[in-house]
Amino acid sequence: MLLCSLTFSFVIFQEHTNNYALVIHGGAGNMSRLKHDTLAMKAYRAALEEALEIGESILKNGGKSLKAVEATIRYMEDNPLFNAGKGAVATATGTHELDASIMQGATINAGAVGGVTRVRHPITAAIEVMNNSPHVLLVGEGANAFAESRGLEMVDPDYFNVAKKKRNEKSGSGIIAPIIDKMGTVGCVALDKMGNITAGTSTGGMSGKKWNRIGDSPIIGAGTYANNKTCGISCTGHGEFFIRYAVAYDVSALMEYRQWSLSKSANFVIQEKLKKAGGNGGLVGLDAKGNIVMSFNTAGMFRGYSKNGHRETFVFGKGTMKF
Amino acid sequence: MLLCSLTFSFVIFQEHTNNYALVIHGGAGNMSRLKHDTLAMKAYRAALEEALEIGESILKNGGKSLKAVEATIRYMEDNPLFNAGKGAVATATGTHELDASIMQGATINAGAVGGVTRVRHPITAAIEVMNNSPHVLLVGEGANAFAESRGLEMVDPDYFNVAKKKRNEKSGSGIIAPIIDKMGTVGCVALDKMGNITAGTSTGGMSGKKWNRIGDSPIIGAGTYANNKTCGISCTGHGEFFIRYAVAYDVSALMEYRQWSLSKSANFVIQEKLKKAGGNGGLVGLDAKGNIVMSFNTAGMFRGYSKNGHRETFVFGKGTMKF
Repeated sequence: MLLCSLTFSFVIFQEHTNNYALVIHGGAGNMSRLKHDTLAMKAYRAALEEALEIGESILKNGGKSLKAVEATIRYMEDNPLFNAGKGAVATATGTHELDASIMQGATINAGAVGGVTRVRHPITAAIEVMNNSPHVLLVGEGANAFAESRGLEMVDPDYFNVAKKKRNEKSGSGIIAPIIDKMGTVGCVALDKMGNITAGTSTGGMSGKKWNRIGDSPIIGAGTYANNKTCGISCTGHGEFFIRYAVAYDVSALMEYRQWSLSKSANFVIQEKLKKAGGNGGLVGLDAKGNIVMSFNTAGMFRGYSKNGHRETFVFGKGTMKF
Repeated sequence: MLLCSLTFSFVIFQEHTNNYALVIHGGAGNMSRLKHDTLAMKAYRAALEEALEIGESILKNGGKSLKAVEATIRYMEDNPLFNAGKGAVATATGTHELDASIMQGATINAGAVGGVTRVRHPITAAIEVMNNSPHVLLVGEGANAFAESRGLEMVDPDYFNVAKKKRNEKSGSGIIAPIIDKMGTVGCVALDKMGNITAGTSTGGMSGKKWNRIGDSPIIGAGTYANNKTCGISCTGHGEFFIRYAVAYDVSALMEYRQWSLSKSANFVIQEKLKKAGGNGGLVGLDAKGNIVMSFNTAGMFRGYSKNGHRETFVFGKGTMKF
């Protein structure tokens, strides 16, 4: 049996510019029980592959990074394996409150929704906030109403309950739901052939959350950040730490102000600063040259990347990775 | 008549450590009509003086920066001249949704509430979130319920309507309410004799806001940030820009990663980055040595500081300032 390192990160270097790159995550956490559930593991790996394929096909054909991020995350929101959209975990009272955000590196423009309860694709609601409102962050019933006014697909709150049941059925061992407890956020960062970076994140938030808690996923600078000058970042983990440490923007600040590389910056924030503070989680990111980083300080992180026609997906640390 | 510069910032240098310092703002904006309303001007200056006196008396007697920030902001929340607490501006539908946040530089701990409608002192609700919940940000009815469960003073939503009427009566010329339109947020940053920095911000948000819009005030890293290693910052202005540019944390990042001074960092963010992006507003801040900065790129900003037993308050730029 291979050993699983508790902290791990890696970088794929890219020499060419004017190409595309895509990186995704499906949450980080203590998912060690997955190791003994081949069926569940296969389902997650297949879902990550499919998500990458969707974004890749858009980027390969010269599509915009915004479109690639939206399509990739919409797929993950519809897949009940992940704690986002359909698969969102329940609050303490059994309801579902979803958060999402988007940011474009070319314009430093951003949009986000927090605590939406009737929107099928929160990532699209976040894009609508960015493109068709003067605001960055809308929450609760106001965000629902705005999404509806923009013609987005609305669902009955029960839609998310059905997903929960399905998720439990899908796993032979019944362990999928607990695995993604608290940390099943999804995220995607893309670089298109025009050199533009977009980052997006979507989540059902913390399982059993109360009092309309908002995590880092809809907070620009915490869960999501993008700037063509530096990088695009999407985070997953214990959201309160990611807010307090402005994790996504901090990676960009280190690159800009210390001239550090993407990987050095990301690893410093996740493996040093955040770990020291007791904050569990990880991030995926890329820079304008297509360098990709995936860094996490938990047992595992659902993740994958695509570039130069090559795709790879991973769940655990170095021990189970294929380079 | 003195000229009023559209952009201005200044710094008071402090040689001593182990002392206290306090800096406040009551919003930034185009408040040029105030120049011809002596009555209103006097009322604002008196309110700023009183706010400073409250925080100063706590710090002078060895009290904690958290207590000083809370007491100072509670006073400003109760004063209908400011767009916070009682004086909060109305949403598009005539309701009042209040935001506030707090952060402590010693622990990098933080708390915030967004869109509360029944809490008399949102700053105290933010402190309760920080100290007595596992979360950083609660919004809407959940945040109301949490505040109530902590025994905070709850008010009828009409409390804020009454304040609006009173505010209009108070001004001889009736121009006070429009002056603080959009940009009357209040904020306070304090350094206590133990060397600990606390920053807090409270607001009624953007006048006429829709869809449960959340601005930068309850967003840690955007409207508020504190770190004993660098600085404490409270912002005011067009919140969407402050979120996209992670303004409060950016000042700290420049100090930490570029070894810039507080004033150089703050001025770069407000006068260069934000101005270039078209973002109007300003900030107040201080570092662990008691250096104070107040920087804004609008016509004026209600502001003041206290240190070494000396208090000063200002509304417009250099032209009307007394050093």
